[in-house]
Amino acid sequence: MSVPVTGPASVPVSGPAPFARIAIIGLGLLGGSVSRAVRAHLPGVLTTGFDADPAVRARAREIALADVIADTAGEAVAEADLVVLCVPVGAMAAAGGAIAAHLAPGVIVTDVGSSKASVAKALAEALPGVAVIPSHPVAGTEQSGPDAGFAALFHNRWCIVTPPALADAAEVARVAAFWEALGARVEVMDAEHHDRVLAVTSHLPHLIAYTIVGTASDLEEVTQSEVIKYSAGGFRDFTRIAASDPTMWRDVFLSNRDAVLEMLQRFSEDLTELQKAIRKGDGETLFDTFTRTRAIRRSIIEMGQDDARPDFGRNHSD
Amino acid sequence: MSVPVTGPASVPVSGPAPFARIAIIGLGLLGGSVSRAVRAHLPGVLTTGFDADPAVRARAREIALADVIADTAGEAVAEADLVVLCVPVGAMAAAGGAIAAHLAPGVIVTDVGSSKASVAKALAEALPGVAVIPSHPVAGTEQSGPDAGFAALFHNRWCIVTPPALADAAEVARVAAFWEALGARVEVMDAEHHDRVLAVTSHLPHLIAYTIVGTASDLEEVTQSEVIKYSAGGFRDFTRIAASDPTMWRDVFLSNRDAVLEMLQRFSEDLTELQKAIRKGDGETLFDTFTRTRAIRRSIIEMGQDDARPDFGRNHSD
Repeated sequence: MSVPVTGPASVPVSGPAPFARIAIIGLGLLGGSVSRAVRAHLPGVLTTGFDADPAVRARAREIALADVIADTAGEAVAEADLVVLCVPVGAMAAAGGAIAAHLAPGVIVTDVGSSKASVAKALAEALPGVAVIPSHPVAGTEQSGPDAGFAALFHNRWCIVTPPALADAAEVARVAAFWEALGARVEVMDAEHHDRVLAVTSHLPHLIAYTIVGTASDLEEVTQSEVIKYSAGGFRDFTRIAASDPTMWRDVFLSNRDAVLEMLQRFSEDLTELQKAIRKGDGETLFDTFTRTRAIRRSIIEMGQDDARPDFGRNHSD
Repeated sequence: MSVPVTGPASVPVSGPAPFARIAIIGLGLLGGSVSRAVRAHLPGVLTTGFDADPAVRARAREIALADVIADTAGEAVAEADLVVLCVPVGAMAAAGGAIAAHLAPGVIVTDVGSSKASVAKALAEALPGVAVIPSHPVAGTEQSGPDAGFAALFHNRWCIVTPPALADAAEVARVAAFWEALGARVEVMDAEHHDRVLAVTSHLPHLIAYTIVGTASDLEEVTQSEVIKYSAGGFRDFTRIAASDPTMWRDVFLSNRDAVLEMLQRFSEDLTELQKAIRKGDGETLFDTFTRTRAIRRSIIEMGQDDARPDFGRNHSD
């Protein structure tokens, strides 16, 4: 499918062959998916993995999530030419610190964090002199843990690469080629723009979903049992997002605070306008707003970014 | 599956055999699904249909959406023993007026409207002396029109029946039996309680989704193309709901104004609290909130009210 690139600060990228030995630090949904995707798409590439949680390492060994599951982060990265940090963004500095003394010469370090300016800063401080090319594959599910990942997670999804201003173009191209090899489409933009874009397409939606699910849980005159039973009226859609990993999302909001608060401010203004329309019985404003929003879904489906089937393709038993 | 009934004002119902001739007024997603479900589950029952839009009637004839597609609402209901009004809630009074003079003795009139107190009032006024037993099957997709419906839409979904205080118990039981025959589970409650429950499980989620999709469309520093490309970060979930029928939803908000505004007020308070936590860098409050909301999704899946597969079972191409 051909996709026009019209965003500001965006440059399409294509590149050479990627890496021979890839270390994955953090073996949850994203780390597990990277590992499985490398195995599926880059046979012959050796993967090493590490997770700070011994139970996750044990499970990763049981299911052979990577070729080698190391007992320390340093051991995992020692001979890698690419390191992918798949930990919550609040843990990036510590992960960088744990690998700093063990990296091989010429290695490139990337990550999958959902906010980029703060991660770039943390990794630049933790890894002075190392080639750090941050990235963010915009893909995921509401599940977490070493069993949650799958090889196709990145297929046809966008991965945003946010190199620092003075990054080596060849290194950026190698990271881009890596994500493309896993089935993703790559865009390059600066970290600040990324953080504003993702504040609206990902962070604000999660904040809203967590809020409404919390609001519904706290009602006194409507029981939790009723909220569950009648959730097919729309509420259940929000519960999927609100089931996402709490540590990951706490870190996202703390690390992308300014952009999230700015988008939240705009959302609140728009909500106040619709509230006023409801209070005044202004059906025309409601109708116009609700008509305008239909077009965006059509575009998302045309761009291959969602399932075209009604109701996301949910199972309706016959 | 056994489901405990713990909500207030809720009575489980089971009933006798339903109806011989069913008239469906309004042939969109809901009317079309009722018609297809009757054909699938109640063979031998004759269906007649009518829609105020001549183009919809023509399409309904082409696809034989009901046994007879009538040219007037009066003709459609003339010999029916059940009439199901499947029009937007703001059009219920007019639909009632159009059929009033043509109803057969002993007929029961029900509907599928998403708000119930206002519909009960409108139909009681339009149909004095007629047995009106309002109902609301909590089921749907984001699609609309005569081609959108399907026979399994009501399977395993809840249908709330909201009889007036002096309704005949046998008539309530017949309407309940009708919905159960289409595969739904039935609860009876009063219209005011229904409107509060649905304000939080359905109306508020739609209002929030319409708002955030509108907010994202209006941004200047983030292009619409970027919003679409990176929608897999969470935003795309909201666009499904925000693609729902504008007329239907305008009417829902106008007709259930007080309950929607009350739930919106609570939501805004909760959102302000999370906003404050982000501003202050209070990770503990964020983490606690995000942990609490996970449990509700588990319950919804255990109760059979959502697809258990990750990401709603969306297609992830291999």
